[in-house]
Amino acid sequence: MVPHLVTALTGPINELEQRILDSMPAIERWFRLEWMEHTPPFYSSSDIRNAGFKLAPVDTNLFPRGWNNLTDDMLPLAVQAAQAAIEKICPEARNLLVIPENHSKNTFYLANVARLVRIFHMAGLNVRVGSIDPAIKSPKKIELPHGESVCLEPVVRSRRRLGLKHFDPCTILLNNDLSAGTPGILEDLHEQYLLPPLHAGWSVRRKSNHLHSYEEVSKRFGKLLGIDPWLINPMHARAGGVDLAEGKGLDVLTSHVDALLTKVRRKYKEYGINEKPFVVVKADNGADPMGVMTVRDVKDLEIFSRRSRGKAPASPGQETPQGPTDLIVQEGVLTNERVNNGVAEPVVYMMDRYVVGGFYRVHAERSPDENLNMAGASFVPLAFSESAHLPQPGAKPGASAPNRFYMYGVIGRLAMVAASYEMEATNPDAETYE
Amino acid sequence: MVPHLVTALTGPINELEQRILDSMPAIERWFRLEWMEHTPPFYSSSDIRNAGFKLAPVDTNLFPRGWNNLTDDMLPLAVQAAQAAIEKICPEARNLLVIPENHSKNTFYLANVARLVRIFHMAGLNVRVGSIDPAIKSPKKIELPHGESVCLEPVVRSRRRLGLKHFDPCTILLNNDLSAGTPGILEDLHEQYLLPPLHAGWSVRRKSNHLHSYEEVSKRFGKLLGIDPWLINPMHARAGGVDLAEGKGLDVLTSHVDALLTKVRRKYKEYGINEKPFVVVKADNGADPMGVMTVRDVKDLEIFSRRSRGKAPASPGQETPQGPTDLIVQEGVLTNERVNNGVAEPVVYMMDRYVVGGFYRVHAERSPDENLNMAGASFVPLAFSESAHLPQPGAKPGASAPNRFYMYGVIGRLAMVAASYEMEATNPDAETYE
Repeated sequence: MVPHLVTALTGPINELEQRILDSMPAIERWFRLEWMEHTPPFYSSSDIRNAGFKLAPVDTNLFPRGWNNLTDDMLPLAVQAAQAAIEKICPEARNLLVIPENHSKNTFYLANVARLVRIFHMAGLNVRVGSIDPAIKSPKKIELPHGESVCLEPVVRSRRRLGLKHFDPCTILLNNDLSAGTPGILEDLHEQYLLPPLHAGWSVRRKSNHLHSYEEVSKRFGKLLGIDPWLINPMHARAGGVDLAEGKGLDVLTSHVDALLTKVRRKYKEYGINEKPFVVVKADNGADPMGVMTVRDVKDLEIFSRRSRGKAPASPGQETPQGPTDLIVQEGVLTNERVNNGVAEPVVYMMDRYVVGGFYRVHAERSPDENLNMAGASFVPLAFSESAHLPQPGAKPGASAPNRFYMYGVIGRLAMVAASYEMEATNPDAETYE
Repeated sequence: MVPHLVTALTGPINELEQRILDSMPAIERWFRLEWMEHTPPFYSSSDIRNAGFKLAPVDTNLFPRGWNNLTDDMLPLAVQAAQAAIEKICPEARNLLVIPENHSKNTFYLANVARLVRIFHMAGLNVRVGSIDPAIKSPKKIELPHGESVCLEPVVRSRRRLGLKHFDPCTILLNNDLSAGTPGILEDLHEQYLLPPLHAGWSVRRKSNHLHSYEEVSKRFGKLLGIDPWLINPMHARAGGVDLAEGKGLDVLTSHVDALLTKVRRKYKEYGINEKPFVVVKADNGADPMGVMTVRDVKDLEIFSRRSRGKAPASPGQETPQGPTDLIVQEGVLTNERVNNGVAEPVVYMMDRYVVGGFYRVHAERSPDENLNMAGASFVPLAFSESAHLPQPGAKPGASAPNRFYMYGVIGRLAMVAASYEMEATNPDAETYE
């Protein structure tokens, strides 16, 4: 079952779909050549928004969760990709340690961990789950729905290695985005592979670096296809050191928002698009408390000056960060897909260089210009029974869900190439040859 | 839908299944290390027979046909494996030329070619089909059932390269086993990848080399698992220069058959197996006219001395080869699987190092000790909707079709490792470092 797509099926995006399908051999070759020079993230997921006239990734996760939202039918692809990934990194691997988030009571999250364990076990590894939560002092087995379970075990650190009691892994897979900072226990591991690397964690990583890399990738890809890179790239700007609680730097933020809205308006005019431009404002360091704020007019920002004067309460999920924060102002991309009448955006899952699955994130109570990654979202897997992510040559643009998903897979992989560039550019251990 | 399995579900084979499942991480690691040292065949398929007490590959095809017998659901795995294969061989690849058999009227075979074209097109290549059949003098489009079609084009040879008019491939994929000899048009290609290599063709390849390599592989694998390699290895002997038409060398053949039947009888006794031993006799060079002859008693060979004296007619599919032929005497392996009451044997398909699918070859009119690869066979795909080739940890031995198929995938891959050794040992261009 592939979700019913109600995207506006005319206009430039279908030209893009047709262009992408026609260029498939050139595109796949381009990716192959990229991966000769760059290392793909071990795994990643990408949130994609399809405005009908524009298609772009809006968030790229290097510690993807939600693997349990993929159908069982997608498992073999994930397993095959995991085998390819392991073979490259450490063919001699026997043991893999998965380090999850410290949400030991969230069974939805733990079902994701169980799925990851299953994928890597099926790829032929001994897999165990090591918690860095100080509350886990002895092995704790947690039963999950559908008869599954996860056993969280306390990690044990020696001078050079991290493991469990009687379990010495050669590779450590982080499913913990380290937004609270890098724990010392993960540092200075000289004889083990730690994936993703520590500088992918949200205490170090910056969205602005990723957006900068993605802009570069979209320009090169646009050249390959002969298209305006704007069709796949959301414009952005960075407003550094804004203290929303104190109202400091609000003028800089406002002028960035104003300038970006003007640029988007100009682009909409160029393409004859009758939509109201908007931008989203979010923290550069991916911090959760602030959330993602949709700004349709500079006046929307006045709430912060009122809040800083104690005249407006913060809404849940959009608390005002304390102290100066670096913010990102990003061109908003509408999502014009609907699944069962709910606003939907596709999420593409990748392992090594391969697209292994995807689903629609659906939120019935949000509008097409709002963030859907909020409590209340549901997930509709892109089922595999129709080979949903392989292109169907000859099908009419817009009419074929498989072709649509091939296009999403291309955009997801562009975000993955950008993440690879980003990780290289921000690697603290990188040697400089200049 | 996974075919109903009626294999005798007790006895040593289930111990083997359990041993294989328990050793999964060690097995996968073993394969990874093998592929560090050796190159897997580009693609291959392996016929496997499951006697209940013994499980072995009986034929390994380096020019696999029948890709159209895999379900559509297996396509994504094949495409992903094809991408991995291309990336290793020629990441810069744009164009792939497929060279099929010269059966331009066999729509079953051409449906296989169409499937291969589809797989490699989806992997991102421009794919065309170049016929070496002298009868194909201009492009010929052949319509197939289900709205598919294949276009056969005449190949064009230049001094160093082979291609089509206005189509210069970097890689040439043979789906033609060259049993009639290597055409000069394929020789001395110095700037193109030709896969599989010419010495994989049946005018050069010898089954005895493969069986010798497989014996070595099964010994090493037996050691890894702590099992008698006989459980996965059919014993064999080679009888050179037998002229069945003239009755020459029949004494050598008879003594080999007798000796092998005795050896099998001894093994059956060791394991308490109440079955009648048999051997199969086939041409070392894979020649079709002779077929595969089941010999249950040395007396069965008398037909050849009667035939050579003109006293017995040859049966269809078992014509007597003219002139001296090298023969293989191989331990017969019963197949005790049934699908819809027909005798069945699993066939495993591999691309690069990955198992990408499989089906049961079923023949209602053959018995469990006879070759099933004959006219009248039908094919029941192992469907993907149940992730049929991934193991299900915890399921009872013998009770789980997915676990059963994981085991078949392991045996298929052992045959693939053996083919890799075989190709190395018989490579005429190999450099010797001794």
